[in-house]
Amino acid sequence: MDTRTGLPVVGMVGGGQLARMTHQAAIALGQSLRVLSEAPDDSAALVAADVRSGTHTDLSALREFAKGCDAVTFDHEHVPTGHIAALAAEGVKIYPGAETIVFAQDKRRMRERLSELGAPVPRWRPVSTAADIADFAAEVAEVAGANGGMGADAVGGRREAVSGAGAQAGRASGWPVVAKAVRGGYDGRGVWMLADVAAAQELVATGVELIVEERVPLRREIAALVARSPFGQVAAYPVVETVQRDGICVEVLAPAPELPEELAVEAQQLAIDLAHALGVVGLLAVELFETEAGIVVNELAMRPHNSGHWTIEGARTSQFEQHLRAVLDYPMGETSLTAPAVVMANVLGGAPGGMTLDERLHHLFAADPGVRVHLYGKQVRPGRKIGHVTVLGDDMTSVRARAARAARWLQEGE
Amino acid sequence: MDTRTGLPVVGMVGGGQLARMTHQAAIALGQSLRVLSEAPDDSAALVAADVRSGTHTDLSALREFAKGCDAVTFDHEHVPTGHIAALAAEGVKIYPGAETIVFAQDKRRMRERLSELGAPVPRWRPVSTAADIADFAAEVAEVAGANGGMGADAVGGRREAVSGAGAQAGRASGWPVVAKAVRGGYDGRGVWMLADVAAAQELVATGVELIVEERVPLRREIAALVARSPFGQVAAYPVVETVQRDGICVEVLAPAPELPEELAVEAQQLAIDLAHALGVVGLLAVELFETEAGIVVNELAMRPHNSGHWTIEGARTSQFEQHLRAVLDYPMGETSLTAPAVVMANVLGGAPGGMTLDERLHHLFAADPGVRVHLYGKQVRPGRKIGHVTVLGDDMTSVRARAARAARWLQEGE
Repeated sequence: MDTRTGLPVVGMVGGGQLARMTHQAAIALGQSLRVLSEAPDDSAALVAADVRSGTHTDLSALREFAKGCDAVTFDHEHVPTGHIAALAAEGVKIYPGAETIVFAQDKRRMRERLSELGAPVPRWRPVSTAADIADFAAEVAEVAGANGGMGADAVGGRREAVSGAGAQAGRASGWPVVAKAVRGGYDGRGVWMLADVAAAQELVATGVELIVEERVPLRREIAALVARSPFGQVAAYPVVETVQRDGICVEVLAPAPELPEELAVEAQQLAIDLAHALGVVGLLAVELFETEAGIVVNELAMRPHNSGHWTIEGARTSQFEQHLRAVLDYPMGETSLTAPAVVMANVLGGAPGGMTLDERLHHLFAADPGVRVHLYGKQVRPGRKIGHVTVLGDDMTSVRARAARAARWLQEGE
Repeated sequence: MDTRTGLPVVGMVGGGQLARMTHQAAIALGQSLRVLSEAPDDSAALVAADVRSGTHTDLSALREFAKGCDAVTFDHEHVPTGHIAALAAEGVKIYPGAETIVFAQDKRRMRERLSELGAPVPRWRPVSTAADIADFAAEVAEVAGANGGMGADAVGGRREAVSGAGAQAGRASGWPVVAKAVRGGYDGRGVWMLADVAAAQELVATGVELIVEERVPLRREIAALVARSPFGQVAAYPVVETVQRDGICVEVLAPAPELPEELAVEAQQLAIDLAHALGVVGLLAVELFETEAGIVVNELAMRPHNSGHWTIEGARTSQFEQHLRAVLDYPMGETSLTAPAVVMANVLGGAPGGMTLDERLHHLFAADPGVRVHLYGKQVRPGRKIGHVTVLGDDMTSVRARAARAARWLQEGE
């Protein structure tokens, strides 16, 4: 507790944009987020009053950081579970716990647990050698042949309807295979599309621990975001569509356009069930593939998530406030939409030269006075997420066009 | 400019809740508000990264503070105009300027200027003695007799319709008279209702510099908020109703319920004209009396204002972001409502004892998951503004009831 205000102190490990935006939410709740930051120019360190220097792999730094915090949580999923368990054993309220966050850190453990729980997942396998991967491809080809499709057990065997000739050719051989690093991937990093055995050999030679997955013929990607408190209350946000480019989320559409109501309910229920089964405290983002045959879990994240940035203006309670409420065991806030159509678009760093970011901002504000801008205070590097924009309105098509234009404007200075 | 981010630095003199909420807005724009704060537990000092210690009456502290700021502005109106002028002469972009802010600091200068501009103001007079005040009361009584009402020239002479027998008795004598300290009043302080000459003598004996005004028989109080940039662009928010209790604003209703469209337009136009005529850069809040005969200017404020706190969730662009955009000469943001009915209620400190603020927050969130809470990190003292709540919805009556309940809950722990 902050003795000056009588209100709780939440510590967040990591000083990125998620901590930055969580600090904004904390201010409204009468709090001031405590941030464990590696560098003084970290996104959150630039704006928070209570910044401690240290790294998330240093147990003694974490221990010192946690002193006086009512709850400790994370800006990312890279804190060693051993450290989290050690702090919890010492009485620190640290969320999500070690036995939970492991499923967001380790894709193999996640796939195993989801399979046990009967959640819909792509066909997958842990692999050590190129031969393992070739075996997996053969199995995918075999099942696809047997079903007139591929890897159909989890999602119902009707997927052959969605793809063209190219995908069919791929299926016939079982290639390409999706390979994922068990640990540490994000924003498309740590994911490879392997075309053949030669590519598999090359990847295996790097020594990275891998799982492989069938390539799911998807209609699109959607995401279900929920928050769960220690008491067990869960709040579910409307299901959104996430649009990826080169493995990076570029747009989020809320609500997911033309998503059948029963599929939306199913996705929300799945996220609620997973939050409960995995013991999540705080936010859980379930990234999903929508296929002809239903939904399939792609990834889990247990923290404020890019697919929820739209909630700052687009939902009655932002994901950042919701995360704070969850880890402090406050009752959850309302999750309903504030407008019929909400679009968030990420702003990526553009090529060097041309207009400065400040000049671009002037032009954007002149062009569209209604766009909401969030900049993270980061050095501009090509392809780096340096901010996002949100547009709200009645018509998804025009809202989407405005958001895309705004993001492009900020990143390219067009 | 912040060399780490390439984005501008705004310095705000004063570390109260207005600076605290402006910092939240600055974060979204990629900035970090620089705050000149008198005490480390000032509301904004608790949450901002870039806090300089100093007082607003110390020119050398202000000069040091302004170094490296792209613009300097204020959390309050108490900085001496001489200091503001000195900094401006040295090339600091400081808004509003000395020749402008004087009209928000000095009620006599404000009334004089507004009278010159032909803006609707109550009958008023600067006074030095109790005899001056008695003369003013006699004049009010005379005019009221002549018009069948009181002080009617500015607002059209139709005010007699609004009051009951008590007010009529008061008018017959010209008493009570409203006395205001020329400088330094706020939240009902510095305003006195003088019942008779004895009361006038007592007040004059304190030596405070005074003006007196007729007591305007008002229907209600409303406020028009605009922002103006150095370029001269002005953005106007919807006109709101402000509800006062004991001289303190307790509720703001947006938009002002059942305000005739032509009166709303007139109030907005008046605020726009005043912003232009006075050379305001940043926000201008024009507090108005709505009378049977039209609108009359009560007070001016040139900073984020309590009557605009509802804009954080209730308008597309919050007043805090708008103020930053104005002082940086960015194009203004959209001011439209995000819901048909928005109500802000101030949370005042309750009596000591009973539940803690944190416990009250738990109960409030359980009772109403949709209410938006803003706490200022201030020590709870009876009657002190320690936060506010905002509720949005379709129906003003139910939205208002929810906001009032939420504010009461936080302050009394009922």
